[in-house]
Amino acid sequence: MQPYEMSLASAAEEIRHGRLSPVELVDSVLERLAQVEPGLGAYVTVTADRARQAARKAERVVAEGRPHGPLHGIPMGLKDLIDVAGVATTASSRVRGGHRAQCDSTVAARLLEAGAILIGKTHTHEFAYGLTTPQTRNAWDPKRVAGGSSGGSAVAVAAGTATFALGTDTGGSIRVPAALNGVVGLKPTFGLVPRHGVTSLAWSLDHVGPITRTVEDAGLVLAALAGHDPRDPASLAGAASPDYRPRDATDLTGVRVGVPANYYFEHVDPEVETAVRQAIGQLEELGARSVGVEIPMTRYVQATQWGLMVPEATAYHERTLRTVPDLYQADVRILLEAGELMSAGDYLRAQRSRTLMRRRWARVLADVDVIAAPTVPLPAAPSGQETVTWPDGTVESVSDAYVRLSAPANITGVPSLSVPVGRSRAGLPIGMQLLGRPLSEALLLKVGHAYEAARPAREPARAA
Amino acid sequence: MQPYEMSLASAAEEIRHGRLSPVELVDSVLERLAQVEPGLGAYVTVTADRARQAARKAERVVAEGRPHGPLHGIPMGLKDLIDVAGVATTASSRVRGGHRAQCDSTVAARLLEAGAILIGKTHTHEFAYGLTTPQTRNAWDPKRVAGGSSGGSAVAVAAGTATFALGTDTGGSIRVPAALNGVVGLKPTFGLVPRHGVTSLAWSLDHVGPITRTVEDAGLVLAALAGHDPRDPASLAGAASPDYRPRDATDLTGVRVGVPANYYFEHVDPEVETAVRQAIGQLEELGARSVGVEIPMTRYVQATQWGLMVPEATAYHERTLRTVPDLYQADVRILLEAGELMSAGDYLRAQRSRTLMRRRWARVLADVDVIAAPTVPLPAAPSGQETVTWPDGTVESVSDAYVRLSAPANITGVPSLSVPVGRSRAGLPIGMQLLGRPLSEALLLKVGHAYEAARPAREPARAA
Repeated sequence: MQPYEMSLASAAEEIRHGRLSPVELVDSVLERLAQVEPGLGAYVTVTADRARQAARKAERVVAEGRPHGPLHGIPMGLKDLIDVAGVATTASSRVRGGHRAQCDSTVAARLLEAGAILIGKTHTHEFAYGLTTPQTRNAWDPKRVAGGSSGGSAVAVAAGTATFALGTDTGGSIRVPAALNGVVGLKPTFGLVPRHGVTSLAWSLDHVGPITRTVEDAGLVLAALAGHDPRDPASLAGAASPDYRPRDATDLTGVRVGVPANYYFEHVDPEVETAVRQAIGQLEELGARSVGVEIPMTRYVQATQWGLMVPEATAYHERTLRTVPDLYQADVRILLEAGELMSAGDYLRAQRSRTLMRRRWARVLADVDVIAAPTVPLPAAPSGQETVTWPDGTVESVSDAYVRLSAPANITGVPSLSVPVGRSRAGLPIGMQLLGRPLSEALLLKVGHAYEAARPAREPARAA
Repeated sequence: MQPYEMSLASAAEEIRHGRLSPVELVDSVLERLAQVEPGLGAYVTVTADRARQAARKAERVVAEGRPHGPLHGIPMGLKDLIDVAGVATTASSRVRGGHRAQCDSTVAARLLEAGAILIGKTHTHEFAYGLTTPQTRNAWDPKRVAGGSSGGSAVAVAAGTATFALGTDTGGSIRVPAALNGVVGLKPTFGLVPRHGVTSLAWSLDHVGPITRTVEDAGLVLAALAGHDPRDPASLAGAASPDYRPRDATDLTGVRVGVPANYYFEHVDPEVETAVRQAIGQLEELGARSVGVEIPMTRYVQATQWGLMVPEATAYHERTLRTVPDLYQADVRILLEAGELMSAGDYLRAQRSRTLMRRRWARVLADVDVIAAPTVPLPAAPSGQETVTWPDGTVESVSDAYVRLSAPANITGVPSLSVPVGRSRAGLPIGMQLLGRPLSEALLLKVGHAYEAARPAREPARAA
């Protein structure tokens, strides 16, 4: 196994024992990047020189026997909405031409302090306002979408051009590309990971979280990210756990897994449904108990998600929408302009609906520990395909399909962990999401890790 | 002193010692009501039979030596937005013709359980959407406004037709009429007193609180009102103090009183300014230390208050505004219709501004314990007077003037206690408000009580 293929946990273990140097690891990732990035388009900016320099410094820390944590010397990609001082935060948009971040975002600062090494900034659907990331190709089939908006991050992790990455998730933007590229994505509880220094799409729905190759790796990254920062008005004080690393125990006895009787298995590709139900069976074999659950207020999901997101996004772009409208891609500009027409009444109805939805979900999650469901209703669609037609004749846009099963966790703020659960006959990855009570990340990671440890070893992700 | 003139605390003490029966007290209040109410118009509905019946029952409880608290047998008026089962909640509006409440609001239930006796429902500016309460006359001068929107409650307490009353406060509606009628009004911390069963004006700004003759009385009523109710989504859990009654100690040594260097003394009647500064001097004599404070973001107060209130009010009236628009008074209907034109962008800008304002106020309130300021910039205006002209030539509507100094406590949610601090040369009451940190009601009441105990005895309120 090449260093670029290792999980974060394995690489950290090798570094700790002196069997792998940060320089070797970074070089391996950069070589892999030189080879596959032209076919993938995962990165906006590659900071190779900076990475090599940081790797040499990290190597010295190890050589001198100074203490260091599991992220020390680990190569990462950061979605290009996340400020790193001295590097442009382009948001994959021409609007940000000539940009240069003055300061590190909170999450970048925390990761850099923990010793992680920046390989580069990864592509996002422009300003995170879309679910395909058109600049980037799927890691498993270059003719298919990467998913989005954190498409670059998921593809980089899947293809071995970053050991881990960060994404942001406003309606599914971490979990959708994670599922479509066969990697792990965690949208934490709203308020657990500070967003200071991260470009906003819709602040009441925005989350930052890890994209990794294993569930254990997601726990290691979350441990570095979580914790209060008063500069994010939504940041929760005293909410972070000291440790998110799932332990080796894979006994799930006593865990009640809610299996949705409605919504999450409707208009879902049969191959996706089969893979997710098999994965739930696997959880049962590990001792978990399945319980049918009714998902509340599902007919309000779309209106609530859009009713919150659209005017918040427009407010953020208010000035540039007036001064440089032509620099936006057409799809994003149309959405932003539509936001100017929304009434205060529609926005506050969406806020009221969210309040009710949070309360109803809390009641469901009082009776089960996690809910298991498909992350997305279908695997990666061919690039350019705009709609999907379901067997009952319903036509849905690909974007609406990708956001449909993700949005409830954004509206309610509950955590959601997407884990790979096999592949379709065409070889495309399928994802299952585990949703839980607010701040139950440790349990989600435990369940996800138990699943991952028990299931047959899968082949490594393969870029085109 | 007639029973109707007594403070709540005195009447409770007399009842406890068997020197006054609830029947005598209620009869005294109802006789006073028969005499003065025709000239005041404080009540929408008088529940005299119900009150006499409750008084007899309360008398038996005392006679039988059963335990009872300080509200036992005390006559009260409830603003006619507050549901009492079996009685109409008219909101002083024709829109509510034929209304009959099915259930007690949380606050009515708590007061009735504590033994308080309903004298009737008091007038509000229609649906609380205004600051004059045109149906009601000022208790000190029938040619002047009662203030609003809780005008009926303040006038009833000032005139002796209720021993205490409840009001609601969205932009000053408890404190403004309290100040204009020479009584005490407390707008508690947002979320401390549940609003379940209380007609909403603008839910993110609405508060329920007591109107009383003394600060001590306000503490006694608050003790019965405060405490979590999950049926109000904004209700705080675990926030209520077990006891709000101010103790006799009037030493204010160590209390830092913030005196605003800007905003609160601008465009203020010189007689009001003098009375408030004298009251602050009185606090200093009691040991408090004055500290100049800068009030932050004052130029955003009006836009934020209206930006939040207008669309929330319109959302509440959405249906009736379409079905029975002609049943609203013109002033209220115009405001509600204006709300339909507000954009989501304006509403969310007001929400953002509130977030910033809360944070900036918290910093100011880290350095002082209370802020002392005029409650309203001028005493009760003659009925029908629409504007006030300040010495620099600025013309302001009377309503804008009355809301101007009150709104910051609604936007930020901090508690504010209005206490009478003397009268103008024309004999009109003047109010000072004490603002404090969230959930610092006990301290506000202590400071207000110390002031009240130290100042020369005032003559009782006199209705026309």
